[in-house]
Amino acid sequence: GSSAPKKSCKELSYGARAALPDTHPLAARLLKIMEDKKTNLCVSADVTRSEELLEIADTLGPLICVLKTHVDILQDFTADVASGLKELAIKHNFLIFEDRKFADIGNTVKHQYEGGLYQISSWAHIINAHALPGPGVLQGLGAVGKPLGHGCLLIAQMSSQGSLAAGEYTQAVVKMAEDHTDFVFGFISGSKISAKPALVHMTPGVQMQTGVDGLGQQYSSPEDVIRTKGSDIIIVGRGILASSDRLRAAEEYRTAGWQAYLKRLSQAS
Amino acid sequence: GSSAPKKSCKELSYGARAALPDTHPLAARLLKIMEDKKTNLCVSADVTRSEELLEIADTLGPLICVLKTHVDILQDFTADVASGLKELAIKHNFLIFEDRKFADIGNTVKHQYEGGLYQISSWAHIINAHALPGPGVLQGLGAVGKPLGHGCLLIAQMSSQGSLAAGEYTQAVVKMAEDHTDFVFGFISGSKISAKPALVHMTPGVQMQTGVDGLGQQYSSPEDVIRTKGSDIIIVGRGILASSDRLRAAEEYRTAGWQAYLKRLSQAS
Repeated sequence: GSSAPKKSCKELSYGARAALPDTHPLAARLLKIMEDKKTNLCVSADVTRSEELLEIADTLGPLICVLKTHVDILQDFTADVASGLKELAIKHNFLIFEDRKFADIGNTVKHQYEGGLYQISSWAHIINAHALPGPGVLQGLGAVGKPLGHGCLLIAQMSSQGSLAAGEYTQAVVKMAEDHTDFVFGFISGSKISAKPALVHMTPGVQMQTGVDGLGQQYSSPEDVIRTKGSDIIIVGRGILASSDRLRAAEEYRTAGWQAYLKRLSQAS
Repeated sequence: GSSAPKKSCKELSYGARAALPDTHPLAARLLKIMEDKKTNLCVSADVTRSEELLEIADTLGPLICVLKTHVDILQDFTADVASGLKELAIKHNFLIFEDRKFADIGNTVKHQYEGGLYQISSWAHIINAHALPGPGVLQGLGAVGKPLGHGCLLIAQMSSQGSLAAGEYTQAVVKMAEDHTDFVFGFISGSKISAKPALVHMTPGVQMQTGVDGLGQQYSSPEDVIRTKGSDIIIVGRGILASSDRLRAAEEYRTAGWQAYLKRLSQAS
């Protein structure tokens, strides 16, 4: 009944989760980076010029655990840009996440991930996919990504108004993720949706200034996302990119996200 | 009750639907092409070399109403390829459909549609989108596509095993389409899912040899898709591309699709 005592769940640190036996190696690497650099900040580098993308990666690299890209909005992408990103990821110890939102049948996403002009699998540690096509999307992506040690996030919820990724849909995504943990290591979601500590939750639509943009995007605060909703990583785009001092803004988000995480840990103990 | 007489629905020809006042101008153009060329065949040109793509477009162009592309699997795309496709579309009177399956928030899909290396909006008459992000995806795409006279298909069902695009999800997609007919002119679906004759249904996963591939794709026959399930256009990929004589195979699919359409019309009269 509703008055029964709730089961007490121990809140594990990022570092402790990295060391769990069933944590995917890429998730372990990510959680270790977060612990070492004291950051749960992912910057969404939605710019259209490659030079600016590389500049963001180099300037903000020390403050982030993940750099999220949309390579297909760059007007001047070349293979050198991918090489540059990889070098900066090593220099500053972050992972690269191409936010491609694969959403086709297995045979097609395999080609989209590996081939074309972008050859995403050659430079992105992390990609994401919609579960909508069914498990074939993971078979296709996994055929390319698993031998390379890459990992995939499933999009379980979206931050846009009126999204259909909710309710039973979200539950089906959680199940699909938990059934494919050899390649899927977490979620794009608004909150913690799986109790398994091996799985990582990343939340987009984060800004200090909450509200809505003109095309349906809805914003939540770092405190709300990490402390209240139990997600692991804040994805911040315009909150940092639109600032006149991106480094200072990124440091504010890093601090806010990390403080919210420390509060969550201390609440649980 | 279940014994009440069913409402008789007149089955309109493609040409008659082209002339309806609420048919989107691009859908009208498509339906007119289908009537004039006696074809409801869309070829899915999933090849990785641009030369082969252009060769398919030129060879099969006379037999098709739509050429479906995945530009992001071409290993050697340049702006010349887009120009070449546009010229062939005029020469053979077909429409170009980039099967991008946009599935992000409005602000992102706007850039993905218009920008990057592919500049999809500059050469594709038709694109498609998942309804998953909510109506913002159509606001973002429509901001680019509507002024250019382009149109969008919403993906209501998928041909892959275990797809989550079913049941209530599909119903929500139909509603979203019917609410945005200034840009959305139809569906990707397995069968007819809207009774509005202005809306066009296109069905992937079509082969004479029905069955399943190794990555979850399921195949239906032209007869089943057009006559039984009431869809308008068959999308055929490997059934034609894997043939040693693509022109002959395409002609077989065109004939099968068109005969199924004529039977459907004669059944309804």
